[in-house]
Amino acid sequence: MADLQSEMKRVKSRVDSLILEKLLPRSSPVKEIDMLYSMMRDYPQRPAKGLRPFICVTACKALGGRESDAMTTAACIELFQHWILIHDDIEDESEMRRGSPSLHVKYGRSLALNAGDALHARMWGILISNRKRLGDSTALRVMEEFSRMVNETTEGQHMELSWAVSGRWDLEENDYYQMVMRKTSWYTTASPSRLGAIIAGAPARTLRLLLDFGLKLGIGFQLQDDILNLTGDQSKYGKARSDDLLEGKRTLMLLRLIRLASDQERRRVVQIMAKPREQKTESDIGYVVSLMEKYGTIDYARKMARRFVDEAIEVADTIEWKGDSSSVSLLHEVARFAVERQW
Amino acid sequence: MADLQSEMKRVKSRVDSLILEKLLPRSSPVKEIDMLYSMMRDYPQRPAKGLRPFICVTACKALGGRESDAMTTAACIELFQHWILIHDDIEDESEMRRGSPSLHVKYGRSLALNAGDALHARMWGILISNRKRLGDSTALRVMEEFSRMVNETTEGQHMELSWAVSGRWDLEENDYYQMVMRKTSWYTTASPSRLGAIIAGAPARTLRLLLDFGLKLGIGFQLQDDILNLTGDQSKYGKARSDDLLEGKRTLMLLRLIRLASDQERRRVVQIMAKPREQKTESDIGYVVSLMEKYGTIDYARKMARRFVDEAIEVADTIEWKGDSSSVSLLHEVARFAVERQW
Repeated sequence: MADLQSEMKRVKSRVDSLILEKLLPRSSPVKEIDMLYSMMRDYPQRPAKGLRPFICVTACKALGGRESDAMTTAACIELFQHWILIHDDIEDESEMRRGSPSLHVKYGRSLALNAGDALHARMWGILISNRKRLGDSTALRVMEEFSRMVNETTEGQHMELSWAVSGRWDLEENDYYQMVMRKTSWYTTASPSRLGAIIAGAPARTLRLLLDFGLKLGIGFQLQDDILNLTGDQSKYGKARSDDLLEGKRTLMLLRLIRLASDQERRRVVQIMAKPREQKTESDIGYVVSLMEKYGTIDYARKMARRFVDEAIEVADTIEWKGDSSSVSLLHEVARFAVERQW
Repeated sequence: MADLQSEMKRVKSRVDSLILEKLLPRSSPVKEIDMLYSMMRDYPQRPAKGLRPFICVTACKALGGRESDAMTTAACIELFQHWILIHDDIEDESEMRRGSPSLHVKYGRSLALNAGDALHARMWGILISNRKRLGDSTALRVMEEFSRMVNETTEGQHMELSWAVSGRWDLEENDYYQMVMRKTSWYTTASPSRLGAIIAGAPARTLRLLLDFGLKLGIGFQLQDDILNLTGDQSKYGKARSDDLLEGKRTLMLLRLIRLASDQERRRVVQIMAKPREQKTESDIGYVVSLMEKYGTIDYARKMARRFVDEAIEVADTIEWKGDSSSVSLLHEVARFAVERQW
């Protein structure tokens, strides 16, 4: 059985070559447009795990499909991630992305916003070109899944942003899960696995089960992401530490803290979180983190992450995998990796 | 023969009903998502000419196609316009759009940026659903045209933005036309007429001629837009007057002024244009406009606008129109309208 890390690297490297050498434009005789192209090629050249294309390709093989048929679609999942991160970084005012300054920090907000749109449009253009390999009908089915995926992601993003904008803290644990399923699960795990299945020609029942699998696994993935943002090694993780606290993101750890803290503590936490990013001091952040430790909310998030992944794997075990068994094993491993990773 | 204004109104009203009653989601039980939907429905409810969907529908009929077959595609052209204007307003920091505050002024930049993405994705989803009426192959051909259209538009937008960001004034008249063909012509005139032709099943030769027609007509349209921005009646035009000068846009009128002005005048104009928007005074704007009048650059833009439209109509006259003659006449009239309109 192939080793997970080396398989992820292999698929990631194939996807990257495809994106950089074939799918994205390389240069233009018009100087300004040449600059746009290098902006579009910027995030695709930064280090990343390649989890999403890996899930797509591996699910396809585990269901009896061919890797080569899934490559363009897997590359489009990466392109989706790239353009939405460009916009996400503008929306969240994130200064760093994968160890380097965000695109809008490098080029200014207007050009970066437009480059995100340009990349978004290229993604659809490439999905259309999929008809040559997959045929019109399957290419359109793949696009339908992308359409649903982008709808869900923008809705989840809206939920999270609007909580911050309107200063809402009256949120339940379930509100968090509802938001994360939309914001993260669809594009990280649900659609990647379903897209692999569509290309492999899997039946509707399998697609339904993969939705359940993916929504649960995605919550586990996001919980681990939130935990790493707070506790992770920045050199591995790539984003500035505690960025979520600076942004005022409603993580499970924070929502649970707000619920468990004393009135006095809660008031101070809410006061700190309401400050604009640049006014939050190190001692502010330290105070919130120490309370999270006091009330065990980070450990609670860890526990919930593992629970969601366990449930996802239970669902996966009911799927009739028709492809090779090593791909099925890799899917299990990658599900575990989603909550055990340190980056 | 139907009157142009009433025909444009009729098509616009059909497109608007389609968008607001059938194509866009109306409400969600999740409060935050309901808010996102009302943001997505905001620009589509503002007054607009509906020039682009009108060109699409009319070209389709002039080439022997059916209006009903073109409606969904025409609606998607409007949706394209809506999402790109949301982003455009953020990029240009435009505070007004069609007589009301821009979406990012109403809801904040982050939520507006994301709502633009959500609308962009809906546009593709609706284009996919076109397969039910047009069949897979034509639906995909329509999408290919959209893909090209968005690529060109974002490249043109990048050219214009990057000139402003890098403070470039060493631009020729032809640079302006190259930028405008990408930024405006493709989505305003070239693709709308070509999409109508694709739906009508027109031959490749017609599509090539419509590209030529549309690129020229679009330049005429943009020149008139630039002129109205400077001289138009704000109550009709909807955008704040002289907004282009406040933004530092490289219009033909300004580029020609820079070329014709004395060294001293040129230095002062460049100095004024380099100021950030909020530091430009009324007397700054007055000075630039008075020089444009002195050197006749507004009249020159008027002359060039008419010339491009004349050339576009000459191209149109070589097309073998197979549909009804009243639609062919309306296309001629709308080409004239592009440079004669006061709004």
